[in-house]
Amino acid sequence: MNGSIIRKILGYVLVLEGVLLLMPGLVGLYYHEEEYKTYLICATVTFAIGAVVAFKKTKNNVFYLKEGCTATALSWIVLSVFGAVPFVLTGEIPHFVDALFETVSGFTTTGASILTDVEALSHASLFWRSFTHWIGGMGVLVFLLAVVQMTGGSNMNLMRAESPGPSVGKLVPKMRYTARILYALYFILTIVEIVFLVCGDMPVFDAVTASLGTAGTGGFGIKNDSMASYSPYIQWVITIFMALFGVNFNFYYFLVLRQLGKALKMEEVRAYFAVIITSIVVICVNTADLYTNIADNIRTSAFQVSSIITTTGYSTIDFDTWPSLSKAILVLLMFVGACAGSTGGGIKVSRFVVVIKTISKEIQSYLHPKNIKKITLDGKIVEHETLRSTNVFIITYFIIFVVSMLCVSLEDYDLVTNFTAIAATLNNIGPGLELVGPAQNFSQFSDLSKIVLVFDMLAGRLELFPILLLFSPRLWLDTIKRKTARKIRKK
Amino acid sequence: MNGSIIRKILGYVLVLEGVLLLMPGLVGLYYHEEEYKTYLICATVTFAIGAVVAFKKTKNNVFYLKEGCTATALSWIVLSVFGAVPFVLTGEIPHFVDALFETVSGFTTTGASILTDVEALSHASLFWRSFTHWIGGMGVLVFLLAVVQMTGGSNMNLMRAESPGPSVGKLVPKMRYTARILYALYFILTIVEIVFLVCGDMPVFDAVTASLGTAGTGGFGIKNDSMASYSPYIQWVITIFMALFGVNFNFYYFLVLRQLGKALKMEEVRAYFAVIITSIVVICVNTADLYTNIADNIRTSAFQVSSIITTTGYSTIDFDTWPSLSKAILVLLMFVGACAGSTGGGIKVSRFVVVIKTISKEIQSYLHPKNIKKITLDGKIVEHETLRSTNVFIITYFIIFVVSMLCVSLEDYDLVTNFTAIAATLNNIGPGLELVGPAQNFSQFSDLSKIVLVFDMLAGRLELFPILLLFSPRLWLDTIKRKTARKIRKK
Repeated sequence: MNGSIIRKILGYVLVLEGVLLLMPGLVGLYYHEEEYKTYLICATVTFAIGAVVAFKKTKNNVFYLKEGCTATALSWIVLSVFGAVPFVLTGEIPHFVDALFETVSGFTTTGASILTDVEALSHASLFWRSFTHWIGGMGVLVFLLAVVQMTGGSNMNLMRAESPGPSVGKLVPKMRYTARILYALYFILTIVEIVFLVCGDMPVFDAVTASLGTAGTGGFGIKNDSMASYSPYIQWVITIFMALFGVNFNFYYFLVLRQLGKALKMEEVRAYFAVIITSIVVICVNTADLYTNIADNIRTSAFQVSSIITTTGYSTIDFDTWPSLSKAILVLLMFVGACAGSTGGGIKVSRFVVVIKTISKEIQSYLHPKNIKKITLDGKIVEHETLRSTNVFIITYFIIFVVSMLCVSLEDYDLVTNFTAIAATLNNIGPGLELVGPAQNFSQFSDLSKIVLVFDMLAGRLELFPILLLFSPRLWLDTIKRKTARKIRKK
Repeated sequence: MNGSIIRKILGYVLVLEGVLLLMPGLVGLYYHEEEYKTYLICATVTFAIGAVVAFKKTKNNVFYLKEGCTATALSWIVLSVFGAVPFVLTGEIPHFVDALFETVSGFTTTGASILTDVEALSHASLFWRSFTHWIGGMGVLVFLLAVVQMTGGSNMNLMRAESPGPSVGKLVPKMRYTARILYALYFILTIVEIVFLVCGDMPVFDAVTASLGTAGTGGFGIKNDSMASYSPYIQWVITIFMALFGVNFNFYYFLVLRQLGKALKMEEVRAYFAVIITSIVVICVNTADLYTNIADNIRTSAFQVSSIITTTGYSTIDFDTWPSLSKAILVLLMFVGACAGSTGGGIKVSRFVVVIKTISKEIQSYLHPKNIKKITLDGKIVEHETLRSTNVFIITYFIIFVVSMLCVSLEDYDLVTNFTAIAATLNNIGPGLELVGPAQNFSQFSDLSKIVLVFDMLAGRLELFPILLLFSPRLWLDTIKRKTARKIRKK
């Protein structure tokens, strides 16, 4: 493995994080908070370490998928570890594992918190929490690709490892421009949301953090009751923007190019909205008894559905008090997740579209074994390799789910708590049910469980294999072997 | 589709069921119970209907996989409907949907019951319940193959549709002899268990019904506390035989042929025992506090593990009172299931062996994309088609699970009840947790939920696709089209 280029990428990531850490520092300065110093110191130190690491020249530019995955997985770990430091140093989350949990939850756009009283945090830290969502949503390496000129196969392989969904769509032939277009769309949509929210008399700080969280489909709120205390208008704006950020970004690119026909024909996007609308209708009917007026009923149902399917995780009520059917639908939506190529998590709608077509094909094969049509998506034949990897992905997902569940079951909480804690972290959602419901938090878990959940959040965000790869003994054995061989050759 | 041959097979199945219904009739006669008349009448009527249906000649002997699956699915439905009649007529289960649930639960070797007081049943009915397990365990069509000479591709296609596991192993080239060998092994093992149990001073009736249930991996007991009141010796005998009936029957065939080496090299069997032993050890440690002596601890853990992984469903304690980790392990074992080619249900150990190898291969493909080895099982390369269908099977399994869960959630029980009710029926186990725990039963569900669970039991036993096929509009449209075409041709 080409270790030197991975080291260089990690260096770049730290330099970038140093710059990003200035932002909460400035926020703290604006609000005259003590914490601004900590953030500025952390920014400087992170930047300096990154610069030193990135400065050393690489031996060569060989860069395969292996390097792409390893670099991505390690970048996210490094990013989270350095991002957690200010929480510890400001004393707002003194225990390091808790701070790490909170930061990973931020970058992976999960939004699960260990804090019992969010409102006690400084503005600087509240901003940093929401800002991690925004950075993690579109991806830090995608950002890096947009600004730094990189060589060899690095662009494509980094993008493949970090972007959500079964296949990475190149919008334009040059990866660098694809990354720039994605970030431009992302930035504009975020600004539009802030404007809409401020127009609804939301305080600017609230509007900015809420929009950063919506854009990244994160879910960290700055109030203990998440979004419950805001006006119906604000709740509707957030509902709509959550749904919009769960759409495949290719859709917006088509819109920008004025290819409306192409955009509307995207099967995944159609399936996504069909699922959202069906779920809202069923939940509305199922929970009708709980409301005195229908507007509240629709708004509340729409908000939670949009929040859960996009894996954002904001809430306006404690849906743990809903009837079984509605809760079951929410748990299912957790796994479905948003569209591929969006900032959302979960298994992704397109994978389910492919899977349902595969099952239908399987049934046909019993009827007419010699006359089977190929599976298509958006009019194009789905490659055999994509079908295979989709199946393997989903099965691996469940295996990770099950192993995590066993680890967390070592603590004697009820099955629903354990089940939904894993579902909420592996799918990057945030709240689950029972002890991790919207009105609760993750603070009661032991450090061991928290580390398992941290693993799940990272595995969910990076779509399993980059993180699993780090646990493959062969990856490390190969690297060690090659280094030893090189040393012997030198002698 | 060749409807006439399917009709003939259904006729044979009814004739066979008529003969089998004589058995509980004789048991009733022996115990001087009124119910014997009902069973004898049902036996005669079923036999007569079957004979009339089977008598008519078939138009041709064309028999493809489609006919095999349809015939199998319809056979199991017909078998269950006729098998439920005596329960209704004797007045022991007066409501038909309940009686159908109980019979399907019997034939599919699930063992989930809607009865609140099993001990109130007549000996005739108790025997019939246990006997359905034995018939359903190895398969009624496999039995038919063993005794009736059939034509065309019918043998292989019926066997493929009814036998559990990803691929049907022909023990000998002729399917008919394979079916006979399987039933011979099955019969001998059952007799051996009865002998062992009677030696432990178990009453003969108890020993026979317990053995029929163990052999079919069913789980209907004749006592309200299942197996809790029997001696430790009896519990150990049942534990061991449950485990033995979960083994791939090819293993025993190798033993009969004295090919011990081949038998011991079967990867699935080794994985199966490894899972059993690991689970017992972990549960023993996890539940150690509940027992005053270690012998009870080991016996109880071993009994429930053996019962759940083989999908039998007997119990000696209410494992719903166990700590979370132990319960989570049991829930997982429900899905793992027994070996392919055994009488057990679940997803099957061999499928998991293949899946784990697939995931490991996927990780390798990130490291060395050009140097990937084929997946092997027992030293043989696993065909691409088997890999694909294994993946599709598991995903379809979860989709059925999820849809059933939504249907059952219409009733407002807790999530654990709903989840484990589906797990216990789709995997053909019997007891779940909470309201369907070992100390509870399925009587509280509505008729709609019971029909969903009946579907799940059949889908689980017949490995999904034969039952799903019945819901494919194309199957029926094709049949209607061809009939119309034939009529037009005649004119």
